[in-house]
Amino acid sequence: MRPHVVALGGGHGLAASLSALRHVTDHVTAVVTVADDGGSSGRLREQYDILPPGDLRMALAALCDDSEWGHLWRDVLQHRFGGEGELAGHAVGNLLIVGLWDLLGDAVSGLDLVGRLLGARGRVLPMAAVPLTITADVTGLDAEHPEVATLVRGQAAVAKTPGQVREIRLDPPEPPARPEALDALREADWVVLGPGSWYTSVMPHLLVPQLAEVLSATPARRILTLNLQMHTSETQGYSAGQHLDTLRAHAPDMRIDVVLADPRVVDDHEALAAHARQLGAELVVAPVSRTDNPVEHDPLRLAAAYRDVIE
Amino acid sequence: MRPHVVALGGGHGLAASLSALRHVTDHVTAVVTVADDGGSSGRLREQYDILPPGDLRMALAALCDDSEWGHLWRDVLQHRFGGEGELAGHAVGNLLIVGLWDLLGDAVSGLDLVGRLLGARGRVLPMAAVPLTITADVTGLDAEHPEVATLVRGQAAVAKTPGQVREIRLDPPEPPARPEALDALREADWVVLGPGSWYTSVMPHLLVPQLAEVLSATPARRILTLNLQMHTSETQGYSAGQHLDTLRAHAPDMRIDVVLADPRVVDDHEALAAHARQLGAELVVAPVSRTDNPVEHDPLRLAAAYRDVIE
Repeated sequence: MRPHVVALGGGHGLAASLSALRHVTDHVTAVVTVADDGGSSGRLREQYDILPPGDLRMALAALCDDSEWGHLWRDVLQHRFGGEGELAGHAVGNLLIVGLWDLLGDAVSGLDLVGRLLGARGRVLPMAAVPLTITADVTGLDAEHPEVATLVRGQAAVAKTPGQVREIRLDPPEPPARPEALDALREADWVVLGPGSWYTSVMPHLLVPQLAEVLSATPARRILTLNLQMHTSETQGYSAGQHLDTLRAHAPDMRIDVVLADPRVVDDHEALAAHARQLGAELVVAPVSRTDNPVEHDPLRLAAAYRDVIE
Repeated sequence: MRPHVVALGGGHGLAASLSALRHVTDHVTAVVTVADDGGSSGRLREQYDILPPGDLRMALAALCDDSEWGHLWRDVLQHRFGGEGELAGHAVGNLLIVGLWDLLGDAVSGLDLVGRLLGARGRVLPMAAVPLTITADVTGLDAEHPEVATLVRGQAAVAKTPGQVREIRLDPPEPPARPEALDALREADWVVLGPGSWYTSVMPHLLVPQLAEVLSATPARRILTLNLQMHTSETQGYSAGQHLDTLRAHAPDMRIDVVLADPRVVDDHEALAAHARQLGAELVVAPVSRTDNPVEHDPLRLAAAYRDVIE
C-alpha cells in the first residue's frame, strides 16, 4: 500500500505538486480551488453558472498516465484555440469538461470520466460544490491613504492587484464542500498545501468551513510547500516567514507538520524555523527548483523531497 | 476475414448505414461529405477555415464501440451546448475534433484519434482534403418563370430550397480527394452509396474527380440504398426511379450492382427495376424501415438486408 496523499491548491502550483506526487505514490487526490473568474474559465462560468473548469483541467493533466495515450490527451485538453472567433482562448479540456457536466449533471462524475480518459493516477475534486468568488481587503491602492483597505473582488483581480492583500474572504461566505473531498481528507495519510498563489490558490481551502474543520481533525500529517517566488503581486514584500504567518492568521486552529522550502527562499534559517514552529511544524530545506528556471518547481526534485518527508 | 465495406454519404443517412454495417462486418470505412455550411459546423468552418466536422462526428458516433465506454463517449460527442452563450448550439464532438485538428495539423490523424477514443469499429475519412461548397441550379423559385434556373449556394440552402434541384456542382470544382479515401475504395469488397439527402449527401462524392474515377474502377461491388422518404425539399416530386436517373446523370460512367429499396417506396416494381437496370443493377426490395417511425432506417433490418446482399 502506497500512501494516500491529498494535495490542496489550484493553478500551476497545484499542477507542480501533482507532477511530483505522481512519482511518489499512485494514490493522489487533488482538491482544487473553484474561484477562478478570469480567461476561459471566467467566460464559461459567466455563461453557464458552473464551477470554473480551468484549475480542475490543469490538475487532471498533471496526473495523466505516462504513456503515449495519456500524453496525447493531456496535450489535447491543454490546447487552446487561437484566432479571433468565439472559441478563441478556450482550452479544449475546459469545453470538454463543461460538455460532460452539462450531459452528466454532476461535476465529480464528469471529472472522473476525464480522469479515466487520461488514465490519471489519482482523482481530481472541486473543493466546493458551488462556484466561489474571492474578495480581498487590499491596502496601498490609494497613494494618499496607503493604509486604507479597498475591497477587491474576483480571483483574477486579486491575483494581479498592485496593492498588498491583507485578508481574503469567500462569497458565498460558507460554501458547502464536496463530500468526496471531505472523505479524501479524512482517509488521507498526508495532506500537501501549496505551492501556489498564496491568497488565491492556497488559502481559499481554509475558508470553506467544512474543509477547515476536517483539515484540522484529520489524522493525516500535513506538509506546507513554500513558493519559489516570494514577491508576487499578491504578496509584495512578504518574507517566507510572513507567508507562514498569513496562513496562521487565516486558519488559527490548523497545525502543520512539515514546512518544505527551497534554499533560495531561506535567508535566515533560524528565523524561518521559528515561524514554522509557531504552526507546529519542522522546517525542511531541500533543493526543489528547476535548473533552467529557478522560480519553477522541478517535478523530480520536488518528488524526492516529498518522498524523503513521507518515508 | 470479414468484408471491407466503404460507405459514402453524410449526415443522418450515412449514420443509419454505418449503424447497420457495424452488425455485418468489423471492417467499415466511411467516406464523408465535407460541404456542410450550416449550424455548428458552418460557424466553425467560417472561423477556422477547416473541414466542417459535424458529418464526420456523426459517422464516428455511429461506429462507436458497443460498450458502456463507447456509448458514453458517443453521447458526449453528440451532446450540444444549450443556452445563449458563445458555445450554444455547438456539439461537444465538433469542438473536440476542431481542437485535435488545430493541435495535430492533420484532419485524418484527428479523426483516427476520436475513433480510438470511441473504440470505433472502422475508420472515418473526409471525402476531400479541402472544405467544399455545393452550388445548385434550382428551378421553380420564380413563380412567373418556373422553368428558369436560379443558382443556390451552400449545402444548408440547397437542402432547404423550396424549388427543384436540377444539377449540383462543387466549389472548388475539382477538389483533391483524401488519398486514404481512394485507397479504401480500391481495397474495398463492397461500396455502399446512400441513403441520405440525395443532392447534398449522396451525390457530392461523384463530383470529386479522383473519387468518381476510383469508384468506377474499383473491383468492389456497389450497393445503392434508396431513401425512405422520396419527397424531401431537395427532391420534391421525384419518384424512386427519378432518384436513380439523377444519379446516372451526375455519374454516367458508374455502374451499380444492387439497388436496395424498402417496399414503401416501390410503387411499380417493374418500372423501378428497369431504372435500376439502366445503372447495371439488380433491384432488391427488403423491409428496412423502423416500426415506430417508417421514414427512418432500422439499423437491424438494414443490417439484415446488407448481409443478405453481401453474403
